[in-house]
Amino acid sequence: MTETRTLAVIGGDGIGPEVTAEALKALTAVAGPDAFDFVHYDLGAERWQRTGEVLPDSVLEELKTVDAIVLGAVGAAPGSKAIPSGLLERGLLLKLRFAFDHAINLRPSKLYPGVPTPLAPRIVDGKSVDFVVVREGTEGLYCGNGGAVRVGTPHELATEVSVNTAYGVERVVRDAYRRAQSRRGQLTLLHKHNVLVNAGSLWNRIFTEVGEEFPDVERRYLHIDAAMIAMVVDPAQFDVIVTDNLFGDIVTDLAAAVTGGIGLAASANINPSGEFPSMFEPVHGSAPDIAGQGIADPTAAISSMALLLDHLGRPELAARIDEAVSADIADRGAERFRTTEIGDRIAARLA
Amino acid sequence: MTETRTLAVIGGDGIGPEVTAEALKALTAVAGPDAFDFVHYDLGAERWQRTGEVLPDSVLEELKTVDAIVLGAVGAAPGSKAIPSGLLERGLLLKLRFAFDHAINLRPSKLYPGVPTPLAPRIVDGKSVDFVVVREGTEGLYCGNGGAVRVGTPHELATEVSVNTAYGVERVVRDAYRRAQSRRGQLTLLHKHNVLVNAGSLWNRIFTEVGEEFPDVERRYLHIDAAMIAMVVDPAQFDVIVTDNLFGDIVTDLAAAVTGGIGLAASANINPSGEFPSMFEPVHGSAPDIAGQGIADPTAAISSMALLLDHLGRPELAARIDEAVSADIADRGAERFRTTEIGDRIAARLA
Ligand SMILES: CC(C)[C@H](C(=O)O)[C@@H](O)C(=O)O
Ligand SMILES: CC(C)[C@H](C(=O)O)[C@@H](O)C(=O)O
Repeated sequence: MTETRTLAVIGGDGIGPEVTAEALKALTAVAGPDAFDFVHYDLGAERWQRTGEVLPDSVLEELKTVDAIVLGAVGAAPGSKAIPSGLLERGLLLKLRFAFDHAINLRPSKLYPGVPTPLAPRIVDGKSVDFVVVREGTEGLYCGNGGAVRVGTPHELATEVSVNTAYGVERVVRDAYRRAQSRRGQLTLLHKHNVLVNAGSLWNRIFTEVGEEFPDVERRYLHIDAAMIAMVVDPAQFDVIVTDNLFGDIVTDLAAAVTGGIGLAASANINPSGEFPSMFEPVHGSAPDIAGQGIADPTAAISSMALLLDHLGRPELAARIDEAVSADIADRGAERFRTTEIGDRIAARLA
Repeated sequence: MTETRTLAVIGGDGIGPEVTAEALKALTAVAGPDAFDFVHYDLGAERWQRTGEVLPDSVLEELKTVDAIVLGAVGAAPGSKAIPSGLLERGLLLKLRFAFDHAINLRPSKLYPGVPTPLAPRIVDGKSVDFVVVREGTEGLYCGNGGAVRVGTPHELATEVSVNTAYGVERVVRDAYRRAQSRRGQLTLLHKHNVLVNAGSLWNRIFTEVGEEFPDVERRYLHIDAAMIAMVVDPAQFDVIVTDNLFGDIVTDLAAAVTGGIGLAASANINPSGEFPSMFEPVHGSAPDIAGQGIADPTAAISSMALLLDHLGRPELAARIDEAVSADIADRGAERFRTTEIGDRIAARLA
């Protein structure tokens, strides 16, 4: 690269820092030691417990100036009493997605040869399972637009509001059409417009309208519930999927599971205007149950670096990471490796 | 049975009437010709196209007086232009669920021996996949509580509101604990409380509070996205699942898929107070693509009759239907049968 880029690195909680270290190793191996400056931020559970800070405004301001953000994972274990439920997810992860207008949450799924899938051989044999979910990242039920009255009483009422705008839907749908156009030319909208009529009509309308500009892309619609079935009986049918924030959250975990597990699923949170830094992270969480043991699979974190390089205009380096990951996965077979071993193996292929 | 019960029968659209005929055949076979009076209602797409009526108030009043409702399926094909999207789903199916306060939407999933599952043998071999999803049926995002402004413009804003009350959550959670108690003593709450904090806190609180009354039931929590993974990598881990209306919709289609397909998934919409008739229906939809060909699998519709008999206080007859269905599925093997053939085979076992 001609100029050194600055990356903010937020290892986060649990296995986050472990897998992130391997991601940076791969990045340095493929791009050289001078391509990136890494600026580490100790955000996450530990900092909150020490200082009560989740994401200070000053840090948010600093983060605005970097070229991209590398995130490991944040969040306490679901049942943890030490950290209020969702505090880090909302105060840090979602805060960044919203503050930096990460409208396009990109989640590719690919079943690599040799990777064990929970699906039966008859479902996947001889087929190429290789699709991308383009998840809206700044609207829907993730806005934090809800409330509750008479909390703690038998008369409690709690609401959550899904907010959808033509602006928000249009930009993610357009992005998805573009990706479909440069892939196999098929785009599927997932929603539940037979029940969620208001949001569903908006998504349908924009999907159809924008689709007119992409006559070479075949478009189809599936209800989110029907998509659950499609994803396990014939995942090879998908090319690009576009959907809202919550449906995207749900379907991408299923997509990850059927393509070999959450340990392999990479993601990008892209700010389409380029005004703010985009953020790259594995789909998996902080997995407190296996943290500190050095056994977390860093493959997803490493693959996320391919998405980062692509975003920063280095598709040829991105392709090299993808190739190294795919070769290494094939090579690993059923053998289990430690976090650093996998990182070293992939870095060695890239060096 | 001592007295003849009146059942309202709404065959509905597509394959609905075909599978419903076989369900009634099984019911008559197991309970005898005098146990039930069937009153047929021609509600659905065809009536709407002929008369513009979806569910007239007079019919709703009549339905209030029956002992239970047998429903086939309603709804046009997703892309259909003839019928406005969701008109029948909301005007008929959801209307009945809400008007008759069907708080408990019960959806058992069981992987019968010999039934092809899309999951790999290593996931299911030697394990018993047998669980029940207790889905809330009268709240959440299904209330129709949403709106839109500036419709059709680039400034459109569309909302959908999830409404959750302590009353609504408590009754479904309590029902789920009772079922867990009479099964293997394990209950899992599915939600997304790290993002949907208001609704999530309410569900969590009630889940914990009511759980205190069931010390013999082990309770645990899973995020809905994590549940997607769990459902495909180890579905045998579940006993009873309780969740909200939309998450329940999504997870039950996945549950059906992993246990051999939507053609086998039965459901009950139960009014817990007994004030209104409960409703029994297969989970599958109207499947317009295969309607009229006599090839739809009526097994789910027939299994729903077991739930009906159980609800009407005839568990011994319900068990006989379950046994006949399970025996027939084993007997069928990989061979494909026509709708009426399957109905006849099961009825013969019951006679
Ligand atoms: C941790 C959580 C807030 C997050 C989400 O729901 O988006 C995660 O599940 C994801 O998919 O990135
Ligand atoms: C047809 C539709 C309205 C319905 C639902 O969403 O509840 C169906 O998917 C179901 O699961 O019974």
